[in-house]
Amino acid sequence: ENTFSATSPMEVLEQMASALGCSLTAEELAAHLDRIDELRHLREQFLLPKVTDLPPTDRSLVDPDDDCVYFAGNSLGLQPKRARVYVDEELDKWGKMGVHGHIKGSRPWAWAENNIEGLMANIVGAKVEEVALMNGLTVNLHLLLLSFYKPTSERHKILIEDKAFPSDHYAVESQIRLRRHTPKESLLLMKPRQGEDTLRTEDILTTIEKEGDSIAVVLFSGVQYYTGQLFDVAAITRAGHEKGCFVGFDCAHAVGNVELRLHDWGVDFACWCSYKYLNSGAGGLAGAFIHEKHTNSVRPTLLGWWGHELKTRFLMNNEMEMIPGVGGYRLSNQPILLVCPLQASLEIFSQTSMATLRRKSVLLTGYLECLLQQCCGPDPADPHRPHMRILTPSQPSERGCQLSLSFSVPIATIFRELERRGVACDMREPNVLRVAPVPLYNSFRDVHRFVAVLREALARSSDPMGLAPQTPP
Amino acid sequence: ENTFSATSPMEVLEQMASALGCSLTAEELAAHLDRIDELRHLREQFLLPKVTDLPPTDRSLVDPDDDCVYFAGNSLGLQPKRARVYVDEELDKWGKMGVHGHIKGSRPWAWAENNIEGLMANIVGAKVEEVALMNGLTVNLHLLLLSFYKPTSERHKILIEDKAFPSDHYAVESQIRLRRHTPKESLLLMKPRQGEDTLRTEDILTTIEKEGDSIAVVLFSGVQYYTGQLFDVAAITRAGHEKGCFVGFDCAHAVGNVELRLHDWGVDFACWCSYKYLNSGAGGLAGAFIHEKHTNSVRPTLLGWWGHELKTRFLMNNEMEMIPGVGGYRLSNQPILLVCPLQASLEIFSQTSMATLRRKSVLLTGYLECLLQQCCGPDPADPHRPHMRILTPSQPSERGCQLSLSFSVPIATIFRELERRGVACDMREPNVLRVAPVPLYNSFRDVHRFVAVLREALARSSDPMGLAPQTPP
Ligand SMILES: Cc1ncc(COP(=O)(O)O)c(C=O)c1O
Ligand SMILES: Cc1ncc(COP(=O)(O)O)c(C=O)c1O
Repeated sequence: ENTFSATSPMEVLEQMASALGCSLTAEELAAHLDRIDELRHLREQFLLPKVTDLPPTDRSLVDPDDDCVYFAGNSLGLQPKRARVYVDEELDKWGKMGVHGHIKGSRPWAWAENNIEGLMANIVGAKVEEVALMNGLTVNLHLLLLSFYKPTSERHKILIEDKAFPSDHYAVESQIRLRRHTPKESLLLMKPRQGEDTLRTEDILTTIEKEGDSIAVVLFSGVQYYTGQLFDVAAITRAGHEKGCFVGFDCAHAVGNVELRLHDWGVDFACWCSYKYLNSGAGGLAGAFIHEKHTNSVRPTLLGWWGHELKTRFLMNNEMEMIPGVGGYRLSNQPILLVCPLQASLEIFSQTSMATLRRKSVLLTGYLECLLQQCCGPDPADPHRPHMRILTPSQPSERGCQLSLSFSVPIATIFRELERRGVACDMREPNVLRVAPVPLYNSFRDVHRFVAVLREALARSSDPMGLAPQTPP
Repeated sequence: ENTFSATSPMEVLEQMASALGCSLTAEELAAHLDRIDELRHLREQFLLPKVTDLPPTDRSLVDPDDDCVYFAGNSLGLQPKRARVYVDEELDKWGKMGVHGHIKGSRPWAWAENNIEGLMANIVGAKVEEVALMNGLTVNLHLLLLSFYKPTSERHKILIEDKAFPSDHYAVESQIRLRRHTPKESLLLMKPRQGEDTLRTEDILTTIEKEGDSIAVVLFSGVQYYTGQLFDVAAITRAGHEKGCFVGFDCAHAVGNVELRLHDWGVDFACWCSYKYLNSGAGGLAGAFIHEKHTNSVRPTLLGWWGHELKTRFLMNNEMEMIPGVGGYRLSNQPILLVCPLQASLEIFSQTSMATLRRKSVLLTGYLECLLQQCCGPDPADPHRPHMRILTPSQPSERGCQLSLSFSVPIATIFRELERRGVACDMREPNVLRVAPVPLYNSFRDVHRFVAVLREALARSSDPMGLAPQTPP
């Protein structure tokens, strides 16, 4: 049952390959892994783009019947098939009964998002009262910081990653200015050691220990968007609390990707978007979490009618009866058209568990790592041959599904070659590729195909004159 | 051409009736008004609910083939038929090409809302750079107040209507508290005179004149949600500016309902939702306006990556290059599924003009007023007979399309009787009904039917024993 966590993914793969009598890089191994994948049926609940439907695909280089290799779920998740069914239901309802839709049907618009907050809470390891679905991520981050960041002259700093996601960086800077402090003095950036790509947990903990007395808020991402590093949320939270800081997490890249226990870990607040691993579509409804321990002590700074108790909200007497906890942070009514695809996706999650998904994910990404090392790493005999190295930590406990690859050559050409062959993933200039095999819908065959294609792309890029025949001139 | 504004709607109606040789209450007049309505083709671009599709309808009381009388567009506008076409296009795109949809197709998700901000700007009388489509209304109100409400010890008050929409009331209270003032001292509520239902412009102007030195922000609605009163935006703005106040408007009930010239009037800021007269569906994308005169002086308080110049937004180097003006207030990326129905609706608006719509609206609502006065007003001979009076100002220049009716008897029974007969409108306990004939899709026949049904409902309600035969027991 729990073989994959007991031993390393590499050990599992080696045992399997040897049992099959094939090499680690054989297609046979991928096929076998798919056959024994207990979650493989979930792929059928998503719309998988065809290679030929991706705009940059070169039809002469692909099998037109093939699905694309979709490794961009860290950017935008695939569409659950039921998303359209639910959207259609609500468009029908709107067309047929107009304003009555607010209180009728299976998704009454006036509280439709509340009906899926239980499913959402399961995925982040929270109680349902600790979770609100609303707004966009950055909006929620601001609403939360307005409560949790109340600097004093002694305790005025916010600790974030040096290369936090830009929106978080700007948000934090602006919160510091709002409270009449300066980023120069109050923004503490946590950098990796010289020559290293990711942060060491020990360094994070030491920094908190050392600087904690002046830190008001520790704000980390759960999984780093660029490097794919999974932070030790529990340890960081504990360390922050020991120094009297509030500790919050941007879980954009963690939610639906790794197991979270926001409640058990005592995290003070968190926010996330839903268009990545939660597959809700571009600009989907975001989430916010506030731990229940703050229910009676932390209050929203900005108020709106949607934070008013539902029971009496529409009496409209201008006397606020606030929902306790994160519910009181609601401002505006929420869009039903965004609830639909998110519901469709959360229902797929509810057919399994984050623990099960994570078990597949560890093996799937371990398999990707293994093939990449075998096929695309540096060649000691030919150090100038284009190759990649993996920025993401190699410990499964320190990463989610994403691997970030750094190339010895500019990424643009390689990326174009990948795209021409029907791969969707994400490039960051000058030389980084981010690839995310998502356990909900990606297969081991996807991984195998990806590495084969990357190998080809690398070969192409080391053949800049285009001497090797490939496409008609 | 401009007959309706030259003379009062009542005069126009009387002339027409006499030309037709019929009474003001004759169905013939409604039919004639529809025939000469130059906008009547627009109704076909919306999905009109059938009487039988409204959940409370009693089938024995209606013609099952009839459209309902939809007078609830002030709460939730009807669905433009093209809404589904556009939503389908984007769901198709998501399904077919995943993350590539961010930059491909006719609505690239990464800037789709920008493509319809020009249409939006036309409707509120703004330049396109003065308008941003984002978030929900209350969220936008907060983002704007964070810039425009910066109280000093002398100038710390916010002037709002006594019965402002609850969300605005809560928002303003919380902004006052955020800035370390108290609603008790800093919230100025503008009440109607004793015995009056609506505010007199002269009283508003006098209050601003008298209290202006201590007022930081004057915040009014464009059209009052409860009474339907249209405020004199230009005069209030002028008065506020004379006293050195910022002047902002919540245009939730004004946008798409009355002509706005936010730019020409020099309004400092405004926000609105799009699910009412803009027909974008429950929880649709909201709008915000900041006058261009503030481009170099007023800056957003809270920042996010969507306020970063599009050209360099995705370089992700954490150095903010802010979009000037209201564009810099963007925080999160916006939901494509909300852009679609709003685009469908704005395209219908673009087939006409607010001036033309308003001309129809004045006559349509004037016709409603006329019939209500004729049929449902107090009967001097029988003062106890249930009746209504109109709270909304009778001057067309002081109202939009909505009329708010106050009844001499509790509203619940009357409302139920209306609903049983296929009318959709809005009730506010204890005795107010709000009815909004919307010029985009309502007809003069709708008005005529509504008044006939209301008359029946009133009769029913004065026959509490149900002695008059009506429905089988
Ligand atoms: C006048 C007015 N202001 C504010 C709101 C709140 O809108 P939202 O829930 O979109 O923030 C409404 C909603 O109906 C409204 O009518
Ligand atoms: C880690 C992280 N934080 C914040 C954001 C910003 O999200 P939004 O545009 O929904 O506010 C993103 C978006 O990709 C992200 O990846």
